[in-house]
Amino acid sequence: MPGFYMPVRVYEENEAVSRHAAELAALGKKALIVTGRNSAFINGSFDDVTRALEGQGTAWSVFRDVEENPSTDTIMRARDLGLEEGADFVIGIGGGSPMDAAKAVALMIRHRDRDISYLYSPDGDSSALPVAEIPTTCGTGSEVTAVSVLTDPVKERKKSIPHEIFPKLALIDGKYLRFAGKSVIANTAFDALTHLIESYLNTKSDAYSRMCVDAGLATWALSQPVFRGEREPDDSDFVHMMRASAMAGMAIAHTATTIPHGLSYTMTVKLGVPHGKATAYFTAGYLAEADEADRNYLLERAGFRDIGDYRAVYRAACGEIDADGALLREVIEAAVDELVSSPQKLALTPFKTDGDVLRRIAFFETEA
Amino acid sequence: MPGFYMPVRVYEENEAVSRHAAELAALGKKALIVTGRNSAFINGSFDDVTRALEGQGTAWSVFRDVEENPSTDTIMRARDLGLEEGADFVIGIGGGSPMDAAKAVALMIRHRDRDISYLYSPDGDSSALPVAEIPTTCGTGSEVTAVSVLTDPVKERKKSIPHEIFPKLALIDGKYLRFAGKSVIANTAFDALTHLIESYLNTKSDAYSRMCVDAGLATWALSQPVFRGEREPDDSDFVHMMRASAMAGMAIAHTATTIPHGLSYTMTVKLGVPHGKATAYFTAGYLAEADEADRNYLLERAGFRDIGDYRAVYRAACGEIDADGALLREVIEAAVDELVSSPQKLALTPFKTDGDVLRRIAFFETEA
Repeated sequence: MPGFYMPVRVYEENEAVSRHAAELAALGKKALIVTGRNSAFINGSFDDVTRALEGQGTAWSVFRDVEENPSTDTIMRARDLGLEEGADFVIGIGGGSPMDAAKAVALMIRHRDRDISYLYSPDGDSSALPVAEIPTTCGTGSEVTAVSVLTDPVKERKKSIPHEIFPKLALIDGKYLRFAGKSVIANTAFDALTHLIESYLNTKSDAYSRMCVDAGLATWALSQPVFRGEREPDDSDFVHMMRASAMAGMAIAHTATTIPHGLSYTMTVKLGVPHGKATAYFTAGYLAEADEADRNYLLERAGFRDIGDYRAVYRAACGEIDADGALLREVIEAAVDELVSSPQKLALTPFKTDGDVLRRIAFFETEA
Repeated sequence: MPGFYMPVRVYEENEAVSRHAAELAALGKKALIVTGRNSAFINGSFDDVTRALEGQGTAWSVFRDVEENPSTDTIMRARDLGLEEGADFVIGIGGGSPMDAAKAVALMIRHRDRDISYLYSPDGDSSALPVAEIPTTCGTGSEVTAVSVLTDPVKERKKSIPHEIFPKLALIDGKYLRFAGKSVIANTAFDALTHLIESYLNTKSDAYSRMCVDAGLATWALSQPVFRGEREPDDSDFVHMMRASAMAGMAIAHTATTIPHGLSYTMTVKLGVPHGKATAYFTAGYLAEADEADRNYLLERAGFRDIGDYRAVYRAACGEIDADGALLREVIEAAVDELVSSPQKLALTPFKTDGDVLRRIAFFETEA
């Protein structure tokens, strides 16, 4: 269904949180802040949010226990806290994990009578408490998408929930990246790049999603020298990285992810490879199978000479996968099996993707 | 406030109305269709909408009396019909006039106890009945903006109302342009181009509005040969023209219009010059005052060699202004006076705009 739908009110500017304190506080009477254990308390985002709320006389409580790749159990614990505290809106602060968790928590507080199985119930009512998102990494784009990816600890499986939960408000401020580690910045920036590429190489790609891809790639390219190790990032890089991530989110919100994301989840669950590093690992293989004109456009617009150049920059920025060859191949085999069992991601690929093609993509790096 | 907010659910495709009949009907129980006297009954859009509603068992009535540059009186008459008929949502079909009218009617039905002065009441509650828009020309972008421009017949003044009323749904189908007259297509397409240029040359221009401008200009350029008179338009031109108009609407929704629009209103009111033809008349002068790099980017991306080329194509497509020199100069003087009295449009100009600059822009064509 070609078109555009991205109803989030996005502000992207320096001091976005304090400048839009009134709009943040207007979402409800009591906020549940959902975040991880550390970064929001180091980069200033937690203080900015609580100061903004307090300045508006709005109460808040905090759940600061979201792990990387949040589990459905974590969502239910945060939900319980939200109910206990009487929260009527949710603020996610952090990378994709807390922001995705915030959406799921907002869903489950709203549906307080439902149990954990509701998270993956595809025919449920997706209404949720209002959500605001404050990104502090530059990859997920979760602040502008309706997507929430959770991990089912029993099935050891990472997957989007079937509910569409768009945030009401996204407050984007590049300054939080000043405090992010180098590898977090690199991994998440390559996640954003993968979103742009997967959105473009997608049967759902249309003029509107390509509008976002086009701008996102050009924005991403501005900070490419950082990932090449040619210079240290400065504040304008942080702005550009956050912006590229948001534009990539707008693009992927219209198309959904495909093979690199589909393959990445198993690698993340089994080997603990960070999400962005895992998705971008499969991007070179995905590009290699694409139509040549598409591949050239994508690589050129993002500032790469060719696939080899992409791989070199990816490795320089994100590093190698830390697993011996046999284990790595075993995990990739499992990822292929897992992906074959969820054919909807394969169906989004604009080129024919049989088992052979999928294996070529999956093993592109190990064969190289 | 840099960022992005465009909450309209946009579908742009062949048979958009019938494909999304369920979503259209879901907006309420009884529709008030707001349209003009003729075109919706010729181009098939009215039949598509009523068939879609009837297929979903949704009642409707129609107000088919919206004139070009709708007056506030017209809004009140349509409002009365809507109240009488018990309409709980509004569907605008047509160019900017019916689509802008639909928003204002939805506002006034919702605020049934208020009189005509509420339309221009700046501190009012802007809540409105749900609105769907179906464009049948390619200029206004009203289907993706919150703007409604009305004409006060007493003051002879055309101006945006201060209420922000975003449609819920925009159903865009290029096929309706097959039935539009050549001059309607040219005038509205040049209105879209002016939106793109005014959005770019704007103090509120940011990375997100430029994302829309960039895609909109490239899309607009695809049909440029039609306006040069090099070929007749085909169905893909109609798709591209409608799309360029929607992208221009997304851009202008974030920045607002500036000098060309500001000058155009008086020309339209006093001389009956069609809206798009009037705005684009002032665009060459606006470009001439802009920063050279900006001007070159805009002209090149839209497919023009230089300002002279723009003027030649504009004249070939839209024709001359039908007024003798003395009258034309008098009207332009009045337009300058009017614009000086609403300084907010001048404040959006990225270059210093004193009286001399404004007069150079306004009289650029008569001096040429």
